Amino acid sequence: MNQFHPQIEQSLSEFGSFTPEALIDLSALLQFRRFDENEYLLEKGQQATLIAFMLSGAMREFYCTEDGNEFNKAFVFTGFVTGSLYDLMSNKPSTATIQCLKASECLVCNYNDYITLSKKPPCLEKIHTQIITRLFCLKVERVHDLLTLDSYQRYQRLLEMYPQIEDEIQQYQIASFLGITSVSLSRFRRKNREQGKPSSPKERSFNKC
Amino acid sequence: MNQFHPQIEQSLSEFGSFTPEALIDLSALLQFRRFDENEYLLEKGQQATLIAFMLSGAMREFYCTEDGNEFNKAFVFTGFVTGSLYDLMSNKPSTATIQCLKASECLVCNYNDYITLSKKPPCLEKIHTQIITRLFCLKVERVHDLLTLDSYQRYQRLLEMYPQIEDEIQQYQIASFLGITSVSLSRFRRKNREQGKPSSPKERSFNKC
Repeated sequence: MNQFHPQIEQSLSEFGSFTPEALIDLSALLQFRRFDENEYLLEKGQQATLIAFMLSGAMREFYCTEDGNEFNKAFVFTGFVTGSLYDLMSNKPSTATIQCLKASECLVCNYNDYITLSKKPPCLEKIHTQIITRLFCLKVERVHDLLTLDSYQRYQRLLEMYPQIEDEIQQYQIASFLGITSVSLSRFRRKNREQGKPSSPKERSFNKC
Repeated sequence: MNQFHPQIEQSLSEFGSFTPEALIDLSALLQFRRFDENEYLLEKGQQATLIAFMLSGAMREFYCTEDGNEFNKAFVFTGFVTGSLYDLMSNKPSTATIQCLKASECLVCNYNDYITLSKKPPCLEKIHTQIITRLFCLKVERVHDLLTLDSYQRYQRLLEMYPQIEDEIQQYQIASFLGITSVSLSRFRRKNREQGKPSSPKERSFNKC
């Protein structure tokens, strides 16, 4: 029953603190899952059922349009929550697909069981609100960037947010996130190398949400 | 003390139900405010302090870039919550500006007072979580539309969501939301008229969030 306590605390401690009882209850719901590279956590059109707390690895959340084009909407790294919360809440066929970009380890549980539990101990309800708040802030920043930044500025922003991303994620996946071709991304990388730009992390407001 | 009960219930009932005590406490915080057309609720760079529950009218939330370009990120209608929740939470100078597109009536209160209160009665905490959840879903849909739809499809989506929007909002403001020129928007409107397309409302998943 208690085997996941360290991982849960690692994954969720930034959202709030647990009572020992809540930790036991949550631990009882969670299952450890290892996903292979390219494996799917969720496919478009399925009913989303699993909420996943990332322990290691990397995933992408993407939209696939009817004509087969893919648009990466977000990357999911260690410490993130995924499952496509929007689709988990909608109770409709999923709009998004989630795929592992690297072998990944997660704690997963059935979303409805998690929601039922999170309505009981106040500490879990607070953590759930904090998770939604964090995701809300990330989406606001994504809208801001899509509306006001050009593709090179969005590339710079991505490097500020995730300085190691180019070591971890394939170039064409990053290009899909930015809405550009791999050729354009290569040009941006060359431009940065020529200008000697560091990929220093920069805090964004959502960290305070 | 009790003068705002009907308006509060009108504005917030879809997010949850109140105990009589919570309604009295919330009513004591809220002030009725009437804004003129073009008046600002929040300007970029200010510290956001007011959360506003819209009773009537229309506002726009927009980003203004350093070179003076404006990008409408959202419209705010009756029943919506605004104040730029992202900026209210960030505790930093506001990234967004909020301006009335029509004379508007709101119930407003200091965000910190609202948060302090919403941590006390469980019913208010649930309502606050529902508000964040609704805003999260709206942002997910905005990201979806910006990534996967072309500007004509985004126009169609906007008409589905808000069938009366063209009667209420000036064309150039709608064009700014869609990221197109007024000339392009006129072309879309002509195309719809020629095709006899109705502006029928269509449910989106966020309604279930």
